[in-house]
Amino acid sequence: MTVATAQNITTEITFADCEQMDARDPLRHFRAEFELPEDTIYLNGNSLGAMPARALAQARNTVIDQWGKDLIRSWNTHGWFQMAETLGDRLAPLIGADAGEVVLTDSTGINLFKVLAAALKLQAERAPEKTRIVMEGSNFPTDNYTAQGLVELLGSKHEIVFAEEEEIARAIDERVAVVCLTQVHYKSGRVLDMQAITEKAHNCGALAIWDLCHSAGAMPVALNDCAADFAVGCTYKYLNCGPGSPGFIFAAKRHQGQTQQPLTGWWGHAAPFAFERDYRPAADIRQMLSGTQPIVSLGLCEVGLDIATRADLQQVQQKSRALGDLFIRLLDEQCAEFGFEVISPRDASRRGSQVAVAHPEGYAIMQALIARNIVGDFRAPDVMRFGFSALYVSYLDVWNTVQALRHIMRDELWQNPVYQQRHAVT
Amino acid sequence: MTVATAQNITTEITFADCEQMDARDPLRHFRAEFELPEDTIYLNGNSLGAMPARALAQARNTVIDQWGKDLIRSWNTHGWFQMAETLGDRLAPLIGADAGEVVLTDSTGINLFKVLAAALKLQAERAPEKTRIVMEGSNFPTDNYTAQGLVELLGSKHEIVFAEEEEIARAIDERVAVVCLTQVHYKSGRVLDMQAITEKAHNCGALAIWDLCHSAGAMPVALNDCAADFAVGCTYKYLNCGPGSPGFIFAAKRHQGQTQQPLTGWWGHAAPFAFERDYRPAADIRQMLSGTQPIVSLGLCEVGLDIATRADLQQVQQKSRALGDLFIRLLDEQCAEFGFEVISPRDASRRGSQVAVAHPEGYAIMQALIARNIVGDFRAPDVMRFGFSALYVSYLDVWNTVQALRHIMRDELWQNPVYQQRHAVT
Repeated sequence: MTVATAQNITTEITFADCEQMDARDPLRHFRAEFELPEDTIYLNGNSLGAMPARALAQARNTVIDQWGKDLIRSWNTHGWFQMAETLGDRLAPLIGADAGEVVLTDSTGINLFKVLAAALKLQAERAPEKTRIVMEGSNFPTDNYTAQGLVELLGSKHEIVFAEEEEIARAIDERVAVVCLTQVHYKSGRVLDMQAITEKAHNCGALAIWDLCHSAGAMPVALNDCAADFAVGCTYKYLNCGPGSPGFIFAAKRHQGQTQQPLTGWWGHAAPFAFERDYRPAADIRQMLSGTQPIVSLGLCEVGLDIATRADLQQVQQKSRALGDLFIRLLDEQCAEFGFEVISPRDASRRGSQVAVAHPEGYAIMQALIARNIVGDFRAPDVMRFGFSALYVSYLDVWNTVQALRHIMRDELWQNPVYQQRHAVT
Repeated sequence: MTVATAQNITTEITFADCEQMDARDPLRHFRAEFELPEDTIYLNGNSLGAMPARALAQARNTVIDQWGKDLIRSWNTHGWFQMAETLGDRLAPLIGADAGEVVLTDSTGINLFKVLAAALKLQAERAPEKTRIVMEGSNFPTDNYTAQGLVELLGSKHEIVFAEEEEIARAIDERVAVVCLTQVHYKSGRVLDMQAITEKAHNCGALAIWDLCHSAGAMPVALNDCAADFAVGCTYKYLNCGPGSPGFIFAAKRHQGQTQQPLTGWWGHAAPFAFERDYRPAADIRQMLSGTQPIVSLGLCEVGLDIATRADLQQVQQKSRALGDLFIRLLDEQCAEFGFEVISPRDASRRGSQVAVAHPEGYAIMQALIARNIVGDFRAPDVMRFGFSALYVSYLDVWNTVQALRHIMRDELWQNPVYQQRHAVT
């Protein structure tokens, strides 16, 4: 039996084809684990994941049954103090890490500060002549800002070298201390080759830090198979842990106890409840912790991670690629005349879980989609992003999105004299 | 009409006296705004504040009505992106700050890292010869750890000078760059003189950073009247914002735009949504922000701050002093023979909102209290802490606590042969 996909259907794709794809989708049962507003097609899970149906019950449990009833005792009886580690262990297999290598804590940027400082400290001891940090300048800039802040604070000779995708391999040489890259590009969705880049970095004596904000939960990630040194990421996109839910840190076992991150709070102390005057670092992943965590938000991660852990990440990746392929193909078939330009890789193996489409009227088009409850987002100057979270987006959602796009272009936007004049539509 | 207090009753205090004090307590109506388990006397608000009755409704609102219904749009429509500032403005009057001087974000330790680094940067430009940081070694150690981590990271000539209360004034001299102190001692509850110490610091050309973890919400704090430079603190103790709720940062207006904190994430950028490659600091309090905040936990702060804002902080301080005075007096009157030693200042004007009592069997005694649902806590080697949060602790709660202590000492603990032998009770 052959399953219909955008790849193996040779005639124009129909509504019925999409229905068939949904019927055969091995992940279709996950849709019921999320609550989305009726009639909404949510294509922005690459920015904020949807709400799991169990989220409120979990929040109620933390607020009422833990905080309200057990008060201060909850730190012990409900494992609040261990939550950063226990949830880290839950997340670990999703990113190819082992137990004891991941904690959930703080924000992605603060976590990047920690691991970049820890990596530079390792290098300062082993190879002080290495002064370069290779980053991708066009990616989401908060990582750049963080690195710039650290370099300025250190007042050191470190230098950030910004390279774009095709320049990265060339930029990694003997002068490089750390390669610090986001695996999936926030705008185009393009995936970097973690294996090859990490290997190149190691061959040059550099350490590799990966930002997994747009990868974790969207595709299998193989940190240890790639021998990555450190990683950070967020849990509020494809892991559906809630708005601004705490980020995570991965530190390979071999580096734990060998270096130290500098945001040295009591949660990272070897004996936090001894209240010693001076800092002594924990020798394990706990050293990556700093201070008290927002327990209600952290507790919500339990729900998102539980769902993610039960989904087969190979299937998740396969489906999100199939959704993206379908979207691109339908755009080609049904919207060819409207001037959309797919700026994500058309080759799904090089693409994360989103498709970015450029159009001079992108802002107006996205507004029109949102007015129909089809929610993607827009990034200046002209890029619309469509995120295909495999756990709650269907093939029919993609069909309906393209029908809406076609309708907007043909029957609404292009009827507007302003646009007619601007584009000289015939 | 004279209100009965532990100060103006000359005979032994009775149950009826305590009833009368409660009846005349101007803050008594606030008790209904909190949900505490029945039969629990909660004396640990100095560690984790009690749950406001509206907490669950607030969490439901953030989870269901915002995240669930409005999804990504909530960042704008529900003000998520401004919440750090809007809640900071709500908190500001409670600590003697102005609007635009406070943000709610991150953890206390990470916030201390930011402001200490910002203060040292200011001093490095103005008075690079100043190399000392004065701290109180015996206070809650996470601030020490943070300063130690920063100094080590800077690889600089800075030196942390640990001074205890009576040594602090002497320790502040021309060599000092920054004085970094916690106003209320986490163990003894002793209050430092913010006004005098800040003035001494300024007279010596030093900057003053105050940690308000045990002050905010418990007493009037006058940051601007004292001309404090920076401050940090938590919201989960006397502000009742929930377990691990985000901390806060105060930066005096005069320093904003004049220095820079080094955890430079996109939330602190002058134009966060321009996605520029390079960091440009916001010139206002937003520069103290780093990355995306845990919105569910942050949203809960709304409830705690709303209550705190409606309470008169003078009355809060007055009542918590009166509760502490009553507790000490009842201990003296009813438990004199059991060897309790009050290690908090007996002078209420020098005490925060808690009373610490040392006893060689402190651990066992606190366990026995907790078994009776009277919840304080214990700090090794021998200190029991009793927190008197004025918004939900009553005078009768204090009475009942001392009755329980008396019963434990006379009828339980002292009947145990182990204790009899150890203390040779006659």
